[in-house]
Amino acid sequence: MNKVGFTTFSKKYKELVEAYLKESVSQLSAPTQIKEAMLYSLEAGGKRIRPLLLFATLEAFGKKGELGIEAAAAIEMIHTYSLIHDDLPSMDNDDLRRGKPTNHKVFGEAYAILAGDALLTYSFQVISSASSEAIPTEVKIQLITELAKASGAEGMVGGQVADMDGEGKDLSLDELEYIHIHKTGKLLAYSVVAGAMIAGANNQLLEKFTTFAHHLGLAFQIRDDILDLEGDQEIIGKKVGSDEQNNKSTYPSLLTMEGARQSLLEHITLAKDALNSMELETEILKEITDLVANRNH
Amino acid sequence: MNKVGFTTFSKKYKELVEAYLKESVSQLSAPTQIKEAMLYSLEAGGKRIRPLLLFATLEAFGKKGELGIEAAAAIEMIHTYSLIHDDLPSMDNDDLRRGKPTNHKVFGEAYAILAGDALLTYSFQVISSASSEAIPTEVKIQLITELAKASGAEGMVGGQVADMDGEGKDLSLDELEYIHIHKTGKLLAYSVVAGAMIAGANNQLLEKFTTFAHHLGLAFQIRDDILDLEGDQEIIGKKVGSDEQNNKSTYPSLLTMEGARQSLLEHITLAKDALNSMELETEILKEITDLVANRNH
Repeated sequence: MNKVGFTTFSKKYKELVEAYLKESVSQLSAPTQIKEAMLYSLEAGGKRIRPLLLFATLEAFGKKGELGIEAAAAIEMIHTYSLIHDDLPSMDNDDLRRGKPTNHKVFGEAYAILAGDALLTYSFQVISSASSEAIPTEVKIQLITELAKASGAEGMVGGQVADMDGEGKDLSLDELEYIHIHKTGKLLAYSVVAGAMIAGANNQLLEKFTTFAHHLGLAFQIRDDILDLEGDQEIIGKKVGSDEQNNKSTYPSLLTMEGARQSLLEHITLAKDALNSMELETEILKEITDLVANRNH
Repeated sequence: MNKVGFTTFSKKYKELVEAYLKESVSQLSAPTQIKEAMLYSLEAGGKRIRPLLLFATLEAFGKKGELGIEAAAAIEMIHTYSLIHDDLPSMDNDDLRRGKPTNHKVFGEAYAILAGDALLTYSFQVISSASSEAIPTEVKIQLITELAKASGAEGMVGGQVADMDGEGKDLSLDELEYIHIHKTGKLLAYSVVAGAMIAGANNQLLEKFTTFAHHLGLAFQIRDDILDLEGDQEIIGKKVGSDEQNNKSTYPSLLTMEGARQSLLEHITLAKDALNSMELETEILKEITDLVANRNH
C-alpha cells in the first residue's frame, strides 16, 4: 500500500470512530455537564491508533472495518478514561494533554473522576450493543472478557500501579517492560486481537496477532521515551525531558539512546515478521507499524 | 417466612458472596498492593443488601441463588467502587466509612482511584465468566448492558453528578428523587431485575420487579435520610446530622420528619403490593423490604 492509500484509510476510519464517539455520548440521557466532560477528552484529538489497528486488522481479513465500530469506540473510551485519571493531581498531576488543559483543569477533579468512570462503564455497554448479526453473541462475550483483562488490574491498571511504585527507583529492564506491557501494551494488543476475533480468526492466527501487537506495543513505548528526550515540545504537547526530571526509568536511561534506537528497530522487525507469517493483506498494519517507529508526537 | 428462615438465608448468601469476592480478587495476577486496596473495601462489611436481593429474587422463582453468584459479586464490586470514589477528597471527602478509615486514608488517593477503576472493570469480566450452562450467553449480554446502564452516566454516575450539583441548593422533591433514583435506586433495581433475568422471567414479571425495586430504592433512601438525623453515630458509622451540616436537601428537610416517615411507609406498601401481584414465593423479598424500612444503620 502506498502513502495515499494509508492516508485515505486513516482519514476514513478516524472520522468514523470520532463520529460514533460523539453521537453515542451525546445521545445519553444524563446530566449535560458529565456528557461535556466525557466529550471534551474524547474529542481532544490524538492519533486514534488503537481504533485504526482494529480496523486495519479487519481489513487484513478482507472484512469491512465498520464491523468493529463498537469495539473500536469502546477501546478509545477506555484509553481516554485512563488518560483522564492518570492526569489527576493525585496521579501524574498533569495540566496539559495534547497541548490542551487536562480534564480536571477544565471541569474540576470530581467531574474528571466521574467522567472517567462513566467512559469506562460505557465502553462495555457499547460492545454489548453491537448487532448480533455483525458479531455473534459468543464473540461479544469474549470481546468483553478480554477488554476487561486488558484494562483492569491484570492489565492497564496493574501497569499504572507498577509505574507509580517504580517512580524514583532504578528499575531493571524487566521491571520497565512489565510496566509498559501492562500500562500500554495490553490495550494496544487488544485492539488487534479484537479485530481478529471479530473477523473470526482461528487460535493460531490470534497468537500471531498477539505477537505482532506485543512488539508493536513495546516499539510504541520506546519511541515515546525517545520522544520525551528528543521531541519538539510544540509537537508532542508536553515538556521535553519530563521523564528525566521526574526521575523515571526509561529505555534510553537503561539502554543509552543508541541502545534504545536499536531495541526499537528490533521490535519493529519482529512485529513485521509476525505480519509476514500470516497469509493476509497486512499492508495497512505495516504502515501503522512504520508510523509508530517514526512518529514525532 | 419467619425471622429464623431469613437469618439463615442471609447468613448463607452473605458468606457465599463474600467468599467469592475474596477468592476472585485474590487470584488476580496483579500487583499485591492493588489487590489489597480492592479487598480492603470489599471486605469492609456492609449489609450486602444488593446481592441478597438478587439471591432472594432467584429463590422467589424456586431457583438456586448460586446461579446468580457472578452477577451478585459484580454488583457488590460496582457498589464498592462507587463508595471508594465518592469518599475521595475531591468528592465527599469522607475519612470514615462503616466506622473504618476510607480507602484513600489507608492507601492514598492514587490507589483509591485505581482500586475503584479495577473493581468497576472487573465487575464486567466476572459476569462474562459465568458458565453458559448456568446463564445463556444472550442473557449475559443483557446483564452486562443493564449493569452498565444502571451504573454509568445514565444511572449511578449521573445521580452522583446531580447530587454534587445540588449541594447547597434548595432542591424540589422531583430533583431530590432524580438524584436518589439514579445514585442508589438504579443499582438496587438492577439487583432485583438481574435475578429475574437469570431466572428467565418474562417482560411482565420484569416490569413488576422493576416497580418493586423502584419503591424499595426510594424507601431505602428515605430511611437513610431519617437515620442521618436520628441515627446512633456508633451504629451508622458516621456523624449524625452530616447532611444538615453539608446543607443537603433531604426527605425530612423537604417533607418534615413526619412527612418523610409517611412517604417511607407508602413506598414500602407499594413495594409489597408489587410483590403480592406476582405468583411467586416472595417471602424473603418482603423480609428484606421490612429490613430496609426499619434498619438502624
